[in-house]
Amino acid sequence: MLIQLIGAHAAQAPRLRALLGAGHEVHPLERLPAEGPIRADVLVTTRLTEEEAGRLDSRLLQVPGAGLDGVALDALPPGCTACNVFEHEIPIAEYVLFTVLEHVLELGALPDRLDAWTWPAIHRDRPFHGEACGRTMTLVGFGHIGKEIALRARALGMRIVAVTRRGQPDAAADRSLPVAQLREVLPETDVLVLCCPLDEGTRGLIGAAELAAMKPSALLVNVARAEVAEEEALFEALRDRRIARAAVDVWYRYPKPGEAECPPSRFPFHDLPNLRATPHISGWTEGLMERRYALIAENIRRLAEGRPLENVVRAGQGREKG
Amino acid sequence: MLIQLIGAHAAQAPRLRALLGAGHEVHPLERLPAEGPIRADVLVTTRLTEEEAGRLDSRLLQVPGAGLDGVALDALPPGCTACNVFEHEIPIAEYVLFTVLEHVLELGALPDRLDAWTWPAIHRDRPFHGEACGRTMTLVGFGHIGKEIALRARALGMRIVAVTRRGQPDAAADRSLPVAQLREVLPETDVLVLCCPLDEGTRGLIGAAELAAMKPSALLVNVARAEVAEEEALFEALRDRRIARAAVDVWYRYPKPGEAECPPSRFPFHDLPNLRATPHISGWTEGLMERRYALIAENIRRLAEGRPLENVVRAGQGREKG
Repeated sequence: MLIQLIGAHAAQAPRLRALLGAGHEVHPLERLPAEGPIRADVLVTTRLTEEEAGRLDSRLLQVPGAGLDGVALDALPPGCTACNVFEHEIPIAEYVLFTVLEHVLELGALPDRLDAWTWPAIHRDRPFHGEACGRTMTLVGFGHIGKEIALRARALGMRIVAVTRRGQPDAAADRSLPVAQLREVLPETDVLVLCCPLDEGTRGLIGAAELAAMKPSALLVNVARAEVAEEEALFEALRDRRIARAAVDVWYRYPKPGEAECPPSRFPFHDLPNLRATPHISGWTEGLMERRYALIAENIRRLAEGRPLENVVRAGQGREKG
Repeated sequence: MLIQLIGAHAAQAPRLRALLGAGHEVHPLERLPAEGPIRADVLVTTRLTEEEAGRLDSRLLQVPGAGLDGVALDALPPGCTACNVFEHEIPIAEYVLFTVLEHVLELGALPDRLDAWTWPAIHRDRPFHGEACGRTMTLVGFGHIGKEIALRARALGMRIVAVTRRGQPDAAADRSLPVAQLREVLPETDVLVLCCPLDEGTRGLIGAAELAAMKPSALLVNVARAEVAEEEALFEALRDRRIARAAVDVWYRYPKPGEAECPPSRFPFHDLPNLRATPHISGWTEGLMERRYALIAENIRRLAEGRPLENVVRAGQGREKG
């Protein structure tokens, strides 16, 4: 089979070749051709426009990530199946725990260097910091990622509030409620974690009114998609200290291939001292890649052998290609 | 009763007064008198020399911390009982988890600012970071603190090795072994946490040979007492990258009251880029103080009412003062 890996994922070609062994052609490709048919048995990419989907001649669109907002699923040819992969819930949960502990430890209140002069001064007047234990974490989204975060935050002694579309109770949370009642828990929330899919129900969910309802001591962590929090409202809330701090790993603008200049936002988030800004790396680990490409290789073998695929997000119709 | 709070703990006098209510005199005191008898029903201090202990006329020496290495217990007058308090295991465990996650996240490999120029560059070549999940944490000391750390590290998916004097098995650890066999687990240890008491069995326990046996990628965390790790050997191992990183909260020299200049070590640890150096704050939280002084107030009430004291570390002999 011919497998094409596009863009950032082209670098994974040696790994996929090693996993698949002989009998498959794995081609890295910096970007998709600008015109003409796109032919490959399997296309591995997180980005596919409607126009590109219309030119696709493939049996499997394998998204090497969880988010499907970059691929035009509805425009795929009828015979093409689309699958995704997860496995990022472990490193994302670790990232969120880091941001919580960074927030409560307040190491920024200490001197940068511990030397002969700062040590006696700080030892005399050591400032108290906070504890995660006993604090309330509200998770907007309680899927793969939210549950892994909750598991770890509970071990820290945090109280967990799960906010989901329907608010069905879940043993992994101390309280569950539907997103329509989010406003109600914001005043008691110490850490608000956004870890939901981006859709019409979550776009702009956290706006000026929601941020104003939060504690001035609160931390907001966004590992979902930037647009779940309104760009201007979040910037202003941090600038004006309506909330204490944020950790943001997902951004309002992403660079196109080859683009050398691209601000992550219309607003100067990089000037805010109370923001931990990371470049979409929360899930980006060597362990993630190992686990994901093992699953992708397995799906390619399944396709080759006519077995059912895993993590199907859009089933192709009609018979398998002869 | 007359209660004296000494040194750094003098600042807690209002809290203790509020907890005890009327009927007690709570006196803050910057330092103990240089000569003459030290008279108080209760003395609250973490520092008491042999000479000072000889001048003490008290029924209760209440140490407002866990460590007893600053007080000359053996030199106390026969009728004086000594008690300590814990409650720092929660914030210390949170500190250790923070240092582990800081180590695996490797945020130092990212640009300091996420702006229009760094964002496209880093998005194109995002470096992978590590995961705590699946890594081995070896805890030297498995008491109050070690167990709280293990509980949280296990929720992160870490494997726990407990090193104690006798190495008795413990359900909270995946493997237990006596300190005499420490060397054996160092090559498989990703995070080595020192959280044991300082005594003749642990002083200098981590020396050049132990550091050389560790992985070059390992993290060492010291929340015990500085001297558990040999000063020069630790400095050299970090400087020469024989281990990747350390987080150190306890130091080789502590300033005396009024001393304006005091290096935390004979070696320039503050010049090491691969060290997180903190000024003995890992357990230093508002929550800690609330919990500790609630227990201290309770012990003072017990003393006043002739009830048994809590957390007795050295029982006073003879009858209660008439």
